[in-house]
Amino acid sequence: MDLMEKIVNLAKRRGFIFPGSEIYGGLANSWDYGPLGAELKKNIKDEWWKRFVRQRADIVGLDAALMMNPKVWEASGHLKNFSDPLIECKKCHHRFRADQLRFLPSQGRTAPDEKGIERSEKFHELLFKNPKEAFEKYPYERENSYWDCPTCGGGIKVAIPKQFNLMFKTFMGPAEEKANEVYLRPETAQAMFVDFKNIIDTTRKRLPFGIAQAGKAFRNEITPGNFIFRTREFEQMEIEYFCEEKDWEKWFDHWLGEMKKWLKHLGVSEKKIHYREVSAEDRAHYSKRTVDVDYDYPFGNEELYGLAYRTDFDLKNHSQASGQDLSYADPEDPKKKFIPHVIEPTWGVDRSVLVAMLEAYEEEQAPTARSTSSGQAEEGESATRVVMKFPHWLAPVKVAVLPLSKKPELSKLAKKIFDELSEKFVCEYDETQSIGRRYRRQDEIGTPFCVTIDFDSAKKKDVTVRDRDSMKQKRIKIAKLEEYLINELRI
Amino acid sequence: MDLMEKIVNLAKRRGFIFPGSEIYGGLANSWDYGPLGAELKKNIKDEWWKRFVRQRADIVGLDAALMMNPKVWEASGHLKNFSDPLIECKKCHHRFRADQLRFLPSQGRTAPDEKGIERSEKFHELLFKNPKEAFEKYPYERENSYWDCPTCGGGIKVAIPKQFNLMFKTFMGPAEEKANEVYLRPETAQAMFVDFKNIIDTTRKRLPFGIAQAGKAFRNEITPGNFIFRTREFEQMEIEYFCEEKDWEKWFDHWLGEMKKWLKHLGVSEKKIHYREVSAEDRAHYSKRTVDVDYDYPFGNEELYGLAYRTDFDLKNHSQASGQDLSYADPEDPKKKFIPHVIEPTWGVDRSVLVAMLEAYEEEQAPTARSTSSGQAEEGESATRVVMKFPHWLAPVKVAVLPLSKKPELSKLAKKIFDELSEKFVCEYDETQSIGRRYRRQDEIGTPFCVTIDFDSAKKKDVTVRDRDSMKQKRIKIAKLEEYLINELRI
Repeated sequence: MDLMEKIVNLAKRRGFIFPGSEIYGGLANSWDYGPLGAELKKNIKDEWWKRFVRQRADIVGLDAALMMNPKVWEASGHLKNFSDPLIECKKCHHRFRADQLRFLPSQGRTAPDEKGIERSEKFHELLFKNPKEAFEKYPYERENSYWDCPTCGGGIKVAIPKQFNLMFKTFMGPAEEKANEVYLRPETAQAMFVDFKNIIDTTRKRLPFGIAQAGKAFRNEITPGNFIFRTREFEQMEIEYFCEEKDWEKWFDHWLGEMKKWLKHLGVSEKKIHYREVSAEDRAHYSKRTVDVDYDYPFGNEELYGLAYRTDFDLKNHSQASGQDLSYADPEDPKKKFIPHVIEPTWGVDRSVLVAMLEAYEEEQAPTARSTSSGQAEEGESATRVVMKFPHWLAPVKVAVLPLSKKPELSKLAKKIFDELSEKFVCEYDETQSIGRRYRRQDEIGTPFCVTIDFDSAKKKDVTVRDRDSMKQKRIKIAKLEEYLINELRI
Repeated sequence: MDLMEKIVNLAKRRGFIFPGSEIYGGLANSWDYGPLGAELKKNIKDEWWKRFVRQRADIVGLDAALMMNPKVWEASGHLKNFSDPLIECKKCHHRFRADQLRFLPSQGRTAPDEKGIERSEKFHELLFKNPKEAFEKYPYERENSYWDCPTCGGGIKVAIPKQFNLMFKTFMGPAEEKANEVYLRPETAQAMFVDFKNIIDTTRKRLPFGIAQAGKAFRNEITPGNFIFRTREFEQMEIEYFCEEKDWEKWFDHWLGEMKKWLKHLGVSEKKIHYREVSAEDRAHYSKRTVDVDYDYPFGNEELYGLAYRTDFDLKNHSQASGQDLSYADPEDPKKKFIPHVIEPTWGVDRSVLVAMLEAYEEEQAPTARSTSSGQAEEGESATRVVMKFPHWLAPVKVAVLPLSKKPELSKLAKKIFDELSEKFVCEYDETQSIGRRYRRQDEIGTPFCVTIDFDSAKKKDVTVRDRDSMKQKRIKIAKLEEYLINELRI
């Protein structure tokens, strides 16, 4: 079983992530965050908000409606350009992307020669990039090639691919008519530009400063997949950082540095991260520099985060399209009035969860704990243990409170300890099954500390604290327990 | 200006809440939470999550995809029943609810008598409840009445209203065809039932226990309005609390009590809250008891939260529709296997924000601070001050750090203090305008404490801390400042 499968299984088995609508057979690669996944995801989002919004004087937050006036997507270019070229099967009406179709050259010829195959492949490639040129350059292939429909198996005749917009469309208000069309936002970014003036006016922020937003975005991807890596409904965290044009390189470097620090904080090993300079050819036309932050997933090297210098493209466009003045006036020098330039760091939330889980996963040989006849936990036989070595701040459960047995003399004290610790951090209370199995369960969900209450605890006023990573156990006085855990957890 | 207008203005002016897509002329009563509103809303959601999920051993969280398999809405009854009866104008194709139409009796007669008007009104009312009966009972009115279309002004002939589903529909995947239809969830609740089995299996929770979820929901309301009171895109916080049938009354009372405590915590005065027992006639057919928690808004007494006993209706339905066994097996007694009953408390997030703002708003006569020639703040002339008396935990900004002037000798120390305090709670740094105006600004956004750094601060190693509510000022040693504020804020 490869690491990806192990993570998907563990996520399901332990309640991190379930297939969405599973009892109804699921829904096209949608996923639900279960009790532990919801905590893990919330920890990531909260930490990001704390680090980049709450602790910084130069960044403010935003939480905009995810349905916006369609003119926003007209101005941003999404209505026109946010699309994939697709071919529709005339028989079953399913639509396909270039790479989903098996291209069959020279229909009617039993065995096309090498050159024929080569020409056909070139035609196919060009067709999805510049169909007009392809039709002109390859008239023979145009007439004699076809595709196999992956759904109904029928032959699809070569045709010019149609642009299919990746935004989800719906209707606001009772009538399903053109005037009521709205879209689910395909990114969180645009609201920061649309609300720029309101934010400048109300916060009196001065350049350089940023607006941050986290939340859902929706893209009608043709091929979602790889667990939570690519889903049609997903979460983003984005900052639009506004500065003067002359300072863009400085702030680009700043944000590249911040992303590096964040990844370290998330527990991601540096050697799996690749900062890929996107070439001028592959960049969006308005961007003067883009760096993709890629990660070595078990299924290949793919995008995790991104950093783009978007120039003054967005604010300029929205100024023009809305007729509102979105320029910034320097309060020190009223003659200095200009459209700010923008550095945009983007973090995928679901991909952060995925990478955090991939990085935390470890298998080790280790002794299993068991309880002795005198009612304490001791080391038993060696076995493979699966442990999620999350950084402490990230762990969904910080402390597990485990009475060695269900006897009321233990559970009364254990519940009191649970209630007190729960005031400070997320705890779990578990009293069923052997202590060894309970430790293993906590290891698998990445709980940094297990507090075991045994038959000596009431008398001696102490408990055993077990460390997830070293598996070492320490007797700690109950009166000092909270302080000890706060120090160890560093929260 | 009534209180509602004042709140809407303050929300816009200070950056709590802006009209959505405002530069493009807005979008049908949609709203964006600006820097302060985003913090306020996050505080409410985080506090709810802490209180009901993290601190309770009997509740776990969930964060499910908001697009679910359409079979979910078939089983829940939303596809069939979640609708409004509407009349469409044949001329302009806009659709209207009963209360939006002006009903004109006895077309053709210049002045219908009193009895004619009365009969017409009864007909109109019955038409939207039971059109068949209305047509049978009032054949004359059926032929001789009409409506004025509020949009195009044309006369609409009496017809049987059509059911219009309130769910937002969209298409998942490239083809806009029946098989790809999905809906944006109209409530967060159903995911808790759909994922019930996965959660039971992975958490090994025992009855009674609850599943909690907070997030966006969407309803295509015909008439959204009253600021953030009724919007088509909104946020909910819901708990489905599972118990044995025999215990439902006990848990219903428990949750009524929890909602009361929550409202007190939110700073809502008891006398504005009304617990309205919903009559059997007005309850959903599956509910055996429902209490609406209503609030005296400036625009009238309307719903804020709700509490419903949903019996075993939902799990039973989903069991049948999905063919999956969603019953609960008591681990102590394997023969005891049954579908749990459910108590459902629901909190509106946006309404919580609205009510918190309405309750916090106060206007007072108070002296305005000014800085003296020796460089300290002292009391000046009396003026009206607007102050948002949020409970401390709720305030979007906890502490404002205000150097009395922009001189570097002050700002260096002030920034150091800001950086240190920002590690612990949300702070704002503000160095422009007079100290009096800055205090007023902080009052208006509800900041509990202002820390003023003056020309004595560096020498004497102390600062002035001003309390929002009493406006009293205290000199506090810088070394003791953090501890002082943590104690005062009780966080």
